[in-house]
Amino acid sequence: MIMEGKWHLSLFFFLLFVLAKEVVVAAPPNIIVMLMDDMGWGDLGIYGNPAKETPNLDQMAAEGILLPDFYSGNPLCSPSRAALLTGRLPIRNGFYTTNEHARNAYTPQIIVGGIQDNEILLPELLQKAGYRNKLVGKWHLGHQPQFHPLKHGFDEWFGAPNCHFGPYNDKNTPNIPVYQDAEMAGRYYEEFAIDKKTGESNLTQLYIQEGVSFIEKSVAAMQPFFLYWTPDATHEPLYASKPFLGRSQRGLYGDAVMELDYGVGQVLGKIRELGVANNTFVLFSSDNGAALYASESGGSNGPFLCGKETTYEGGMREPTIAWWPNHIKPGRVTHQIGSVMDIFTTALSVADIDPPTDRIIDGQNLLPALLSDTMDANKTMYYYRGNEMMAVRHGLYKAHYWTWTNSIEEFMSGVNFCRGENVTGVMTHEQVNHTLSPLLFHLGRDPGEKYPIKSTAAEYKAEMPQIMEIVADHKANLIPGTPQLNMCDNAVMNWSPPGCEKLNKCLKGPASEPQKCSWPH
Amino acid sequence: MIMEGKWHLSLFFFLLFVLAKEVVVAAPPNIIVMLMDDMGWGDLGIYGNPAKETPNLDQMAAEGILLPDFYSGNPLCSPSRAALLTGRLPIRNGFYTTNEHARNAYTPQIIVGGIQDNEILLPELLQKAGYRNKLVGKWHLGHQPQFHPLKHGFDEWFGAPNCHFGPYNDKNTPNIPVYQDAEMAGRYYEEFAIDKKTGESNLTQLYIQEGVSFIEKSVAAMQPFFLYWTPDATHEPLYASKPFLGRSQRGLYGDAVMELDYGVGQVLGKIRELGVANNTFVLFSSDNGAALYASESGGSNGPFLCGKETTYEGGMREPTIAWWPNHIKPGRVTHQIGSVMDIFTTALSVADIDPPTDRIIDGQNLLPALLSDTMDANKTMYYYRGNEMMAVRHGLYKAHYWTWTNSIEEFMSGVNFCRGENVTGVMTHEQVNHTLSPLLFHLGRDPGEKYPIKSTAAEYKAEMPQIMEIVADHKANLIPGTPQLNMCDNAVMNWSPPGCEKLNKCLKGPASEPQKCSWPH
Repeated sequence: MIMEGKWHLSLFFFLLFVLAKEVVVAAPPNIIVMLMDDMGWGDLGIYGNPAKETPNLDQMAAEGILLPDFYSGNPLCSPSRAALLTGRLPIRNGFYTTNEHARNAYTPQIIVGGIQDNEILLPELLQKAGYRNKLVGKWHLGHQPQFHPLKHGFDEWFGAPNCHFGPYNDKNTPNIPVYQDAEMAGRYYEEFAIDKKTGESNLTQLYIQEGVSFIEKSVAAMQPFFLYWTPDATHEPLYASKPFLGRSQRGLYGDAVMELDYGVGQVLGKIRELGVANNTFVLFSSDNGAALYASESGGSNGPFLCGKETTYEGGMREPTIAWWPNHIKPGRVTHQIGSVMDIFTTALSVADIDPPTDRIIDGQNLLPALLSDTMDANKTMYYYRGNEMMAVRHGLYKAHYWTWTNSIEEFMSGVNFCRGENVTGVMTHEQVNHTLSPLLFHLGRDPGEKYPIKSTAAEYKAEMPQIMEIVADHKANLIPGTPQLNMCDNAVMNWSPPGCEKLNKCLKGPASEPQKCSWPH
Repeated sequence: MIMEGKWHLSLFFFLLFVLAKEVVVAAPPNIIVMLMDDMGWGDLGIYGNPAKETPNLDQMAAEGILLPDFYSGNPLCSPSRAALLTGRLPIRNGFYTTNEHARNAYTPQIIVGGIQDNEILLPELLQKAGYRNKLVGKWHLGHQPQFHPLKHGFDEWFGAPNCHFGPYNDKNTPNIPVYQDAEMAGRYYEEFAIDKKTGESNLTQLYIQEGVSFIEKSVAAMQPFFLYWTPDATHEPLYASKPFLGRSQRGLYGDAVMELDYGVGQVLGKIRELGVANNTFVLFSSDNGAALYASESGGSNGPFLCGKETTYEGGMREPTIAWWPNHIKPGRVTHQIGSVMDIFTTALSVADIDPPTDRIIDGQNLLPALLSDTMDANKTMYYYRGNEMMAVRHGLYKAHYWTWTNSIEEFMSGVNFCRGENVTGVMTHEQVNHTLSPLLFHLGRDPGEKYPIKSTAAEYKAEMPQIMEIVADHKANLIPGTPQLNMCDNAVMNWSPPGCEKLNKCLKGPASEPQKCSWPH
């Protein structure tokens, strides 16, 4: 009898377990995208940083999968972030300029443009499918009210629309606002302090808290969620909170990385603690390569050439990790070519939502590569700078159709996107058109793009025609979107953001005087 | 009664266990040093190689400890290997030249010199303590009979005395012999084939077999052993066996790395299989930085400047892992500065042998750093090139007293030790003496040595005097050994190595005509 009773009890718990599991499986997986700012491929321990100061990210990789061949959508922040959220190249979604050829453009607070209503953003599609979405950190898809994240699929927001440059005097230039949802909560260097002398700021801690409490709230409400976590501490001006200041071997930049790594640990820890790890897809990456021009205390692009602002590998290769316990097998590596645009399509696939069919979506679903060893060998990566396709990667080959670092005048004045590097004929200070005979590199043998394959070599002749065909096809099907980053106007700066009245923080800007933005590189 | 019986049995097994453990603890630990040839810091997955093709080494690191701040003894092979086995700087043990200032010298087969009898080598001390020692691979401490490994502490040898350059015609220049113990077993490109066209050779497989069977034999005989495993597949001319050819993303160099990684897996696997893992200390490293001048298909120095032949970080930072289950806690990192000279002292400490006291030993015991978190913050690293101390590292600061890559003439002819890199004023084509005001770098913020700290900066003024003092002390106590790498003679080449008669492989060399060796850089 006792035996029988035990059996019944076991059966009961077994059924309960099956049932519980069913319920969990039926719930749409939560999605967390952690996008760093100007962090380079070589900044994580697991990606070869000599300081090895990212234990939480290294652990995330050990439990998840590394993507060493993953790219940003652009060598600059705004276009890359627009690419991520639309799954489309900036040349399609409008985040580029036609003011001059092959110029990097973004969204400073004098920019008139921003994300267009006819673009479909990842959070919009997730929202329709019942997700609750929060942006924590930098937006960078336009700061005028019509471009705000809450108008484009996010339910909540804590962070800033632009880069945290400053401090400004609020007369010629207003300090950048920090939003709590639809209204400003204060301004950088005012309510949200950054001490530029010491580098101290508690902003990353705020971003961690905002992320973690959103997770807690959503899980408690049994609400599937999308958290887009985009702190900006590794973008100049660098900052870290007091407990992290001076902790790194690497100076302030390293302190910021250590605090962000701590944040990743907090977020993943909360996910585990709440028992939703098996139902939460997490992806960590960065918006572009490390800024080598910034200062001594900057990020690392590991063995790759140049950095932010360029279409060499250092400008666009990103330190990427995906994590989804019980779905992604631990400790794996995939060499699948990927980009932030794939986050769009992959996240939709995780949520079991079909991507839009009325437009070209550049992003592709990475789940086959993440969940099994499937590789799409035909995947192509396009490296754009403004309105020009500078380079293309297919398999392990990369062909530069155009080369340019920056103008010799700018370079001579000290702006160096490739500090300490010099590959003759590859890093050019003039815009060189190689379209008729592109510079070809094998990124496996030569990740640093130092040894162009001679155009007379058999290997060149074997590979280049196929790449030429792919590029011809790409260009034939390319319908550029209306460029959003052409016009600037001091009147559109963050003088009087929504909510400024309540805080008595409204400022008076100048009269409108739109003009073409100047994009020097 | 049954209970009591069980208890007795348990006690019996417990005592047996304790006893067995005692026996194991009492046996001197085995020591394996795996020293790669021209492999760079950035060549392993765990050290950030984008191809991530070293699963066995990555696993070794996961089970052991990483040493990202570990150095060779010299930017060139022979002096570095002599430093490892003597625990002394090449300037002390004689592995340098005074023919010209600050020149890299080594032991090609025209060299007259080699390791001197008055130097005490690690295997000699281990041998006296009852170890059996085997060298598998390249020796490089002199090829004349008096310099052979079996005359300097090794009981067995399979491998070659010099680099595997060739094929030669055996008339002007003999092919390099491969030894089995005291006698030659054949010659490279003859009995030991390397197909320079395809890169095919089964030599690494032979080296793996030789290592593994030595381990098996020693363990079966309950004989404590020292295995010095020094395969040369990543030194030009590169080679790999058929199953590995074409497997890597990285070309032939990567194939060679993958085969060596496989070899590491075989060796550690055998150690585990034989149940002696807890009693075997294993250290993996390389003899100098990757040779950036070699070819497109070469090694990687990760984020570090320049490569082999130079005293920038890329020339001497080595991909190092230590492994000793149940002694070294798994998955750790130590930033203790170390060098191959420390292998001497550390191995002695593992074997509980006192280092010599009648001479200066540069090597220090790394066990405190490996077994606990103890760090010797005062450890100093000296970067020598020939007879000159080029640079010094103390803490995270590195001061260059002399800078030089190679002559502008050599550089213009295409020999580039820093391919793709250019740090003005740091990479100099003249030997520049900075002794009065050394170039100072902070390797934490700036591992790539791109941003010299201004000599007017407070940081420079705070750090440099202490370093100056350390260097003055070092130089005051330096008694250079007799230089062994000054004289060359075609007559001393491997014409008739011991054992050549039995194989009918004796060749006739020219009459002796000693002359000063020419060391161009």
